[in-house]
Amino acid sequence: MNASTHVIDKLDLISRSRIRALVAVARDFGQRGWTPATSGNYSVRLDDGRIAVTRSGADKRLLEPSDLLLPDKDGILADGVRPSAETPLHLQIYRQKPAVNAVLHVHSPAVTVASRLAVGQQGIRFHNYELLKALSGVETHDIEIELPIIANDQDMTRLAAAAEPFLSTASPCPAYLIEGHGIYAWGEEVDGAARHLEAIDFLLNCYLLERNPGS
Amino acid sequence: MNASTHVIDKLDLISRSRIRALVAVARDFGQRGWTPATSGNYSVRLDDGRIAVTRSGADKRLLEPSDLLLPDKDGILADGVRPSAETPLHLQIYRQKPAVNAVLHVHSPAVTVASRLAVGQQGIRFHNYELLKALSGVETHDIEIELPIIANDQDMTRLAAAAEPFLSTASPCPAYLIEGHGIYAWGEEVDGAARHLEAIDFLLNCYLLERNPGS
Amino acid sequence: MNASTHVIDKLDLISRSRIRALVAVARDFGQRGWTPATSGNYSVRLDDGRIAVTRSGADKRLLEPSDLLLPDKDGILADGVRPSAETPLHLQIYRQKPAVNAVLHVHSPAVTVASRLAVGQQGIRFHNYELLKALSGVETHDIEIELPIIANDQDMTRLAAAAEPFLSTASPCPAYLIEGHGIYAWGEEVDGAARHLEAIDFLLNCYLLERNPGS
Amino acid sequence: MNASTHVIDKLDLISRSRIRALVAVARDFGQRGWTPATSGNYSVRLDDGRIAVTRSGADKRLLEPSDLLLPDKDGILADGVRPSAETPLHLQIYRQKPAVNAVLHVHSPAVTVASRLAVGQQGIRFHNYELLKALSGVETHDIEIELPIIANDQDMTRLAAAAEPFLSTASPCPAYLIEGHGIYAWGEEVDGAARHLEAIDFLLNCYLLERNPGS
Repeated sequence: MNASTHVIDKLDLISRSRIRALVAVARDFGQRGWTPATSGNYSVRLDDGRIAVTRSGADKRLLEPSDLLLPDKDGILADGVRPSAETPLHLQIYRQKPAVNAVLHVHSPAVTVASRLAVGQQGIRFHNYELLKALSGVETHDIEIELPIIANDQDMTRLAAAAEPFLSTASPCPAYLIEGHGIYAWGEEVDGAARHLEAIDFLLNCYLLERNPGS
Repeated sequence: MNASTHVIDKLDLISRSRIRALVAVARDFGQRGWTPATSGNYSVRLDDGRIAVTRSGADKRLLEPSDLLLPDKDGILADGVRPSAETPLHLQIYRQKPAVNAVLHVHSPAVTVASRLAVGQQGIRFHNYELLKALSGVETHDIEIELPIIANDQDMTRLAAAAEPFLSTASPCPAYLIEGHGIYAWGEEVDGAARHLEAIDFLLNCYLLERNPGS
Repeated sequence: MNASTHVIDKLDLISRSRIRALVAVARDFGQRGWTPATSGNYSVRLDDGRIAVTRSGADKRLLEPSDLLLPDKDGILADGVRPSAETPLHLQIYRQKPAVNAVLHVHSPAVTVASRLAVGQQGIRFHNYELLKALSGVETHDIEIELPIIANDQDMTRLAAAAEPFLSTASPCPAYLIEGHGIYAWGEEVDGAARHLEAIDFLLNCYLLERNPGS
Repeated sequence: MNASTHVIDKLDLISRSRIRALVAVARDFGQRGWTPATSGNYSVRLDDGRIAVTRSGADKRLLEPSDLLLPDKDGILADGVRPSAETPLHLQIYRQKPAVNAVLHVHSPAVTVASRLAVGQQGIRFHNYELLKALSGVETHDIEIELPIIANDQDMTRLAAAAEPFLSTASPCPAYLIEGHGIYAWGEEVDGAARHLEAIDFLLNCYLLERNPGS
């Protein structure tokens, strides 16, 4: 991993700062049980436009900067390293959202269960939560935000095609769910992406608590 | 932030001690997930009567004394700092309750969900819990305490007007809920305010567990 | 508190070791949220027969040996210290159970909610749990253990009278619940008492999860 | 314990590395509350084929390498040490699965409750979860995996006989439940076994959340 560490050390200040912030968020989310069994993956856009994605199989609670894989200027990864299989979903978000510089994907219990319970619906709608204001651009609780859900697929091309309609609209929801799988969330910087993910996981926990038929 | 730190270092012993206690409570509550996505805000009354409120957007798990904003003797904040948007609600409590020196506002899951489930009711009533004795002045479990709920509003003047009737009574409940939003709790010192908030969050968790129709 | 620390430092090895073990358990249980809002209290029997009980109002997550109050040889506490109001319930257990040297009282969410849901029943019965073997003397899961519940009361004499029938029998259950209040658990040493409490809290969590009507 | 520590220090690199990894996993799982009241037990296969099993009664949150008991070359344990009573279940798995080098047994709340709720069924079936891919050899969410459940028994010979049919098949599920008791999970190395256990506990938590009749 020394070679990879060197690559990161030579990056510009903005890129290094995004990587450092991403590592801190990954460890925090890992401690919360949001990336069980080495699941989940993370990426940032570097200042020169390249995308750094976590390698496959890393324990995210112990993530190191060197667990982020950097393509060279021609987009080629070093021999022998294996990026997350879901890298195409990260790249799609960066392509569709030029202002986005961080993409986070986790498997929290709330995300997994909610994505299965709401199946057959287009998405999960949130209304009247103050915490909706944690989403960039949302200024009031008195708004309805829809979190899309797409069907799971092991074929990344088909999965990306299912996500495409949601990414190409100007929806204020900076995230989508994959059924029985997890969530993708993004933001202009790592902190914003983490705030979005934290807010949506909180709202999904409320959603699950409120489904209790005693209510 | 250096300037702000200086201001705090020059305060009297009582005020510095309240700020230190508040920072410790904010970090503890942040670790419990009660201030997700940089939500929540906190304040203390200084010994000279001024109110110090947390700045907007701080991650409460990492709160520092310098994240508390101090108006000068004329009530004016330094240029460029932005106090929490909910500052007027803090000020209202200090105005109505002269003995109160600490106000805490958090968004725990129990608080958020309970405030939505009980909507349409005036408040949530607790009875027969030993932990009610954690509220100042309550000496027995055999009492009924009502936790008020007010509707949420982005207009702080209207929100304060809705809270006013509850603050002007001598209710033994040192807290109120805002629907889908969070809780305000207070006390004579930071420790007492924290004890109140901790007890009410516990009681709301019991309330949610007990709503299970299997009971 | 210096005076009190001195007293403990002069105790025999067995007594000092019980106090050290008790402090570690109290901090651990406090971290789990079992003593919210400074609730809960703890005691050990010293080797000379005296009972040391935690002072009133201590934050159990930060308990220190000096937070345990020691009567002198005539059973008199030093001036100005206030033992837990529930001290008589601790003393009753030590009187009825000569082999017991540690008594633990906490307010975990599972304990509080279960004690309220099972109201009107004599107690909560556990059957077919391997973890029942954590209770001293229990050798199989294929046994029925009843955890008694008594009504809450602010009068300690009446509360003790309600607990008396359960303490004077040879029941294998080393604990009882007080409705809407908490649990008392005991053991020959601090570790055993803590193992009993941990096992019963676990079983009560299972009890609550299983009450879900979908089961 | 010094004698035992010495024995471990003299082991080959692979065996020492498995023991170190096992101790880290045991502490982590203990912190999560998966081995309440000193329950649970763990083992690894050493490079020379001997099996090291945790001693009875150890607090797994504080596990040390010396808490693992090593038989000598003739399979005899040192005088006075007591291995876990469930050692025969560990040995059975190593006998049936020559590639397995780590076996983990815990009592998490999800495992205990799910094993009781599904009683009368052959096992619990999981389908359409991305996290199924955390199980070795599973490449897609679109598969049905059955987690077997066997009845509890204090007679280890009868318990092993009940587990035998599941161990002798080529099922992709690297774990089985014992009703009201806990889970056994295994893997080629400690990390893999831990990943399997973490994934299955996560899936059982989802299973419990989804049983809510409001769904």
